[in-house]
Amino acid sequence: MQNFNFHVPTKILFGQNKVNEIGNEIKKYGTRILLAYGGGSVKKIGLYDQVVEQLNENGISYFELSGIKPNPRVTSVREGVKICRENDIDFILAIGGGSVIDASKAIAAAVNYEGDPWDFSVQKAKVKDPLPLGTVLTLAATGSEMNGNAVISNEETQEKKGMASNSLRPKFSVLDPVYTFSVNRYHTAAGTVDIMSHIFENYFAPSSGTFVQDAMAESILKTCIKYGPIALDEPENYDARANLLWAGSLALNGLTLTGKLMGDWATHGIEHEVSAIYDLTHGAGLAIIHPVWMQYVLNEKTAPKFAQMARNVWNVEEQDDMEAAQKGINAVRAFFDSLEMPARLSDVDISGDHFDAMAEKACCFGKIGSFKRLEPKDVRAILDNAL
Amino acid sequence: MQNFNFHVPTKILFGQNKVNEIGNEIKKYGTRILLAYGGGSVKKIGLYDQVVEQLNENGISYFELSGIKPNPRVTSVREGVKICRENDIDFILAIGGGSVIDASKAIAAAVNYEGDPWDFSVQKAKVKDPLPLGTVLTLAATGSEMNGNAVISNEETQEKKGMASNSLRPKFSVLDPVYTFSVNRYHTAAGTVDIMSHIFENYFAPSSGTFVQDAMAESILKTCIKYGPIALDEPENYDARANLLWAGSLALNGLTLTGKLMGDWATHGIEHEVSAIYDLTHGAGLAIIHPVWMQYVLNEKTAPKFAQMARNVWNVEEQDDMEAAQKGINAVRAFFDSLEMPARLSDVDISGDHFDAMAEKACCFGKIGSFKRLEPKDVRAILDNAL
Repeated sequence: MQNFNFHVPTKILFGQNKVNEIGNEIKKYGTRILLAYGGGSVKKIGLYDQVVEQLNENGISYFELSGIKPNPRVTSVREGVKICRENDIDFILAIGGGSVIDASKAIAAAVNYEGDPWDFSVQKAKVKDPLPLGTVLTLAATGSEMNGNAVISNEETQEKKGMASNSLRPKFSVLDPVYTFSVNRYHTAAGTVDIMSHIFENYFAPSSGTFVQDAMAESILKTCIKYGPIALDEPENYDARANLLWAGSLALNGLTLTGKLMGDWATHGIEHEVSAIYDLTHGAGLAIIHPVWMQYVLNEKTAPKFAQMARNVWNVEEQDDMEAAQKGINAVRAFFDSLEMPARLSDVDISGDHFDAMAEKACCFGKIGSFKRLEPKDVRAILDNAL
Repeated sequence: MQNFNFHVPTKILFGQNKVNEIGNEIKKYGTRILLAYGGGSVKKIGLYDQVVEQLNENGISYFELSGIKPNPRVTSVREGVKICRENDIDFILAIGGGSVIDASKAIAAAVNYEGDPWDFSVQKAKVKDPLPLGTVLTLAATGSEMNGNAVISNEETQEKKGMASNSLRPKFSVLDPVYTFSVNRYHTAAGTVDIMSHIFENYFAPSSGTFVQDAMAESILKTCIKYGPIALDEPENYDARANLLWAGSLALNGLTLTGKLMGDWATHGIEHEVSAIYDLTHGAGLAIIHPVWMQYVLNEKTAPKFAQMARNVWNVEEQDDMEAAQKGINAVRAFFDSLEMPARLSDVDISGDHFDAMAEKACCFGKIGSFKRLEPKDVRAILDNAL
């Protein structure tokens, strides 16, 4: 087990009507807030009204940034920064899924920074003195509600890049399963894949002696396997939504990474290149790429870890590591199929036209992945195999 | 799943030589500290010297409270409060196991309180504005390094009572597995039982829809089952010590209680009465009481949860819930036996002389337990069964 620091000060307010407590939480940090959200869904489900009522009751002024899209654009971030500066904003409240939260983090980072917000994504600048932020989550998927990461897209350069700072962890996050009831079949499935993919990224990584972390990671996978299909069939099943929602936060708050030097994250890197160009739903892209990545990196050295997942999560009883590993990878693919997620890039009308450019961009800072190091030709091969 | 708040801001510094980072952590809060520890073991293993070197290098003044005993006494707490007041202490650093940390929390709570420190234990006073504290842990067991709980004993009244406040969570805790290498066979076993017992208290509690929490709880049990025996046989096995150490913190930082109204905690309540009089090692007392409690509360209603543990943790394949439950309880007892922990109160020279008084005291605030409510006659029966 590697040395580590673990520090997750985000306060989680979990459960039905917990949004009624945001007034007290926000007032610890400020009274003039940026209210960031996406399209009309937060209004349709009544969440917007409930939030605004709390703000009004608590004497909190708010200025709105709406229309933040999936795969959030740096243009939205720039717009948010402008609103914050013009209105002396002291706190950001993000209402939505990962895209709204990620955009809000990028805004929080950039308000007190002189340069362009994109600088953080291309490692030209480091986050310093960000605005504090809180979130009200509406989708079980991202994990962004309990970590310091954000992924932003740049339409001009067709890039999608991550940024990270512990100082960007939300001060609080409200997780009300009822507000995820209206998430449709497709996005419920994509969110479930996203959670599992976050676990895979930290699970399939070089490590030894991380038994307790891996066992907890397996617990979260089992939670997704149990409740993903239930949430698809019974969208208003509270326990299914609640388990997925809490699993999503625990999957990417740092817990399953403790004791490991790093995760793998090659699959996310490759998927980001795909969705930077094609604006594919992140979880759907991961459903295609992750099993293909698993198959590509499977070898004598990596087989034992895939076999561990197969036995502990998918009840594979095969003794031989390579055969167990193969059954585990097949089980992942079959599960994603059962969630009606796409299996091939061609299923979502993506051709191989930009594969070389994607492969180069994915490796623009050097080789990617830690479980197996990948160079552009490997990424190209994975994309070809995913076609 | 019940509504919950989860807020664990304690910063964990985990791994070899992490104690070299305490200077920077302490200086965030103060420069005049109370250094609290127990007997000579922290000096023998070199930890005391390493801590003092860090304090000196960082210009931090320290005043010592040593000699804090297992089942820490309120007399030690009063002594610590006096030292703090006389020396304008602004931070407490606890070096040791649960007893030293618990005593330090009670001191932190009492320094700015006019009454007697015992008031917190008997619910006469609530914790307000405690001193901040940090810990350097030397034993995998308590969980106190990441929560706001403390258990204090009163020799005069022969009572042992818990107190709790979120504000008593340590600001940071250093967990270096190497500093647990010297823990002897008996205390390594007792610590492992203590961790498992904390899991049992929250696992066997009224709840529904808490799949992800229960699966994580089972992960921690499996970690103890794997590494407890290894740590006994190979005391310097780093991964065994590391997994137990991190498992101990995760077992009682609130994670496995999320989504549940409350844990059970009857077993801890009963064990506290035993060790308040007989000064038994806490984990050894739990090794006796917990399986007896399980057997006593096993019935048609509780069997499914015991069966769940049996199947998910002890690989019991029995279909019938009652039979699976029985096999699970037997497996717990057999595992504690394998750790050479006592099975009966008579094994540790405890007679039934004070059972009636213990049963009354355990229930002094009313019935105890939530999985099955227990009154004094039930506690008396459990003690009889444990004899």
